[in-house]
Amino acid sequence: MVPPVQHSVDSTHRLSLDPIATPERLLLGPGPSNAHPTVLQALSRSPIGHLDPLYIELMGEVQELLRYAWQTDNRLTIPMSGTGSAAMEATLANTVEPGDTVLVAVKGYFGLRLADMAGRYGARVVTIECPWGEAFSLNQIEEALASHKPTILAMVHAETSTGVCQPMEGIGDLCRQHDCLLLLDTVTSLGGVPLFLDDWKVDLAYSCSQKGLSCPPGLGPFTMGPRAEVKLAARSGKVPNWYLDVSLLNQYWGSDRVYHHTAPVNMNFGMREALRLLADEGLENAWARHRSNAERLWAGLERLGLELHVREDLRLPTLTTVRIPEGVDGKAFSRHLLDRHGIEVGGGLGALAGKVWRIGLMGYNSRPENVDLLLNLIETELPAFRSAAAAMAAVA
Amino acid sequence: MVPPVQHSVDSTHRLSLDPIATPERLLLGPGPSNAHPTVLQALSRSPIGHLDPLYIELMGEVQELLRYAWQTDNRLTIPMSGTGSAAMEATLANTVEPGDTVLVAVKGYFGLRLADMAGRYGARVVTIECPWGEAFSLNQIEEALASHKPTILAMVHAETSTGVCQPMEGIGDLCRQHDCLLLLDTVTSLGGVPLFLDDWKVDLAYSCSQKGLSCPPGLGPFTMGPRAEVKLAARSGKVPNWYLDVSLLNQYWGSDRVYHHTAPVNMNFGMREALRLLADEGLENAWARHRSNAERLWAGLERLGLELHVREDLRLPTLTTVRIPEGVDGKAFSRHLLDRHGIEVGGGLGALAGKVWRIGLMGYNSRPENVDLLLNLIETELPAFRSAAAAMAAVA
Repeated sequence: MVPPVQHSVDSTHRLSLDPIATPERLLLGPGPSNAHPTVLQALSRSPIGHLDPLYIELMGEVQELLRYAWQTDNRLTIPMSGTGSAAMEATLANTVEPGDTVLVAVKGYFGLRLADMAGRYGARVVTIECPWGEAFSLNQIEEALASHKPTILAMVHAETSTGVCQPMEGIGDLCRQHDCLLLLDTVTSLGGVPLFLDDWKVDLAYSCSQKGLSCPPGLGPFTMGPRAEVKLAARSGKVPNWYLDVSLLNQYWGSDRVYHHTAPVNMNFGMREALRLLADEGLENAWARHRSNAERLWAGLERLGLELHVREDLRLPTLTTVRIPEGVDGKAFSRHLLDRHGIEVGGGLGALAGKVWRIGLMGYNSRPENVDLLLNLIETELPAFRSAAAAMAAVA
Repeated sequence: MVPPVQHSVDSTHRLSLDPIATPERLLLGPGPSNAHPTVLQALSRSPIGHLDPLYIELMGEVQELLRYAWQTDNRLTIPMSGTGSAAMEATLANTVEPGDTVLVAVKGYFGLRLADMAGRYGARVVTIECPWGEAFSLNQIEEALASHKPTILAMVHAETSTGVCQPMEGIGDLCRQHDCLLLLDTVTSLGGVPLFLDDWKVDLAYSCSQKGLSCPPGLGPFTMGPRAEVKLAARSGKVPNWYLDVSLLNQYWGSDRVYHHTAPVNMNFGMREALRLLADEGLENAWARHRSNAERLWAGLERLGLELHVREDLRLPTLTTVRIPEGVDGKAFSRHLLDRHGIEVGGGLGALAGKVWRIGLMGYNSRPENVDLLLNLIETELPAFRSAAAAMAAVA
């Protein structure tokens, strides 16, 4: 007995569309970056079940290769089924309990985000700040740890909003001396910038798929070390976030294989291939490649008279912030690059909005021909975007 | 000045792998289901930026076609950047405030999950239950609303664990009479089973990408109506979940286009194509196709002497629960189907573990040839999995 349909279908929202026809872009902004063709091919494989023995084998490969990329032995190393921001939230959701003091070292936009998130989990959030374009010294960190006595120090290794790479030597030791967990954002460093999580004594870290790993956005690598596991196990109640609850996720990713949620299997196909390619290249080679292409870009920009926002020893090889020259409409030029040449570069965020362009050379895109193409366009086409007054001043 | 690398790379976790080689499977379990080839092709397109004008156009198309699929005019209709479970959590995270009473009508595994999640957001959770394989009557709902006076009634339209479709007529009116929001799980109904969210006066709903929509898992369609928006706007504090905070997401998906997180652009390419194909087919045709292939399956299973777990008027066209015959090792047979024929069917969850198989005919997979293939294998190969005693009993 089929129950009769008692309503009729309304076609107000029934768009009639042509097949998708997105263009090829060269993504030289803060991310997403272009994905490796092999990774894109993997995404289009026919899905298999999230409890299929072959998928479970693949999960193990992804975990192991993430450990390699991060240089960690952490058991709890998994890609969260969301973007990097979900993995960021997972580090806090699992470890923060109401009343914990979370110290956030803010040197750009993503530090502010960490502070916002930590507050939502009931933390007493304290921040230290440094100008957008600089990094913290060990002294600043030590003073803040001593005076605020936090449970967690959260900071950004590679600040995507400013292009600064935070030197990490010694910070982990300070955190242990002050009985504090060290939480690190490696969104714009994983795969492109030297990272030694265990040597640095990092307890919690997260990243994304769409930058140094040459995969599209959609997965958020996450890792938790033994000291953070102890804090999770000692929680008085459930993690206040079901989707990101590592104690549940561990039953799926661990040996029990208890169903939690239906994994994004195709994204994980892509991640597996992205990590395989990175392991094939070798971390030292990948890091050296990012460094050498970034140096080529920096030299070229300076040769064209442009000013880099970050001093060289703190510069990220994956993301360069370059100051928009006086009198140039930065947005108009980047819109021109996109519309005319299919090249994306980023604008500034937060305190740097309107002041810098952000140029990413990450993963598959970190190649000399991309650097030369962009430099050539800046040389030949930027002058038309200088205001008459600025052009006069430049000549004078 | 390049800072010297002070650590050396450890290759313990550096697996050396062959390129990915997952097999073709026919996924006739509870999901994921096979994706449409056009959708898989879309996933492998080169990514574009999440703030690219062309991506923003695509976002609008996805929203509009989701409204069509759900039959709703809700402004806040978006795919969450996670799986269906993330969208499930989003409905609760945004609307529940500590102390709110959430009434969950539990008739299977996913009702239990709703109750678990609501508790994590500080709700006073009360449940009513009915046996796994049955649905609630209007009277049961009305009594529970009157006695518990909840702020939200949460229930599952298409219970993936039992194969039951909850009749929805009249429930929305009861919720309005009792000043209560109606939250509906449509994970296994969207695209495959008649759904009229606005006619049914549903205030909050969610679904997934990997079932009736013929897309791989990884996105969680979410919708929120005006009454739920009012509750969100009246919150005393921030939503206690940053990633799923609709007030922030609305600034990205709405006309402001404020950056929130980097969208999973390739998954959204696939979703756009999946929804386009559904609109091309037309909802009435898609629903009728699912119904007719399910009826073909039901008739075939009964012809083979198997017993369906749910009475016909409550049966889901997308997911059929069939009882494992006495004396048959259900797991061994489904493992045989997977290993020998590359066909996945599901086992039972929770109260139905070991008692039923779950057979999905969803989206692209809802086709007569898939039904016939499976029925033929059950007919010819299941007998070998009956124990000798059971075989004797069957003959007698």
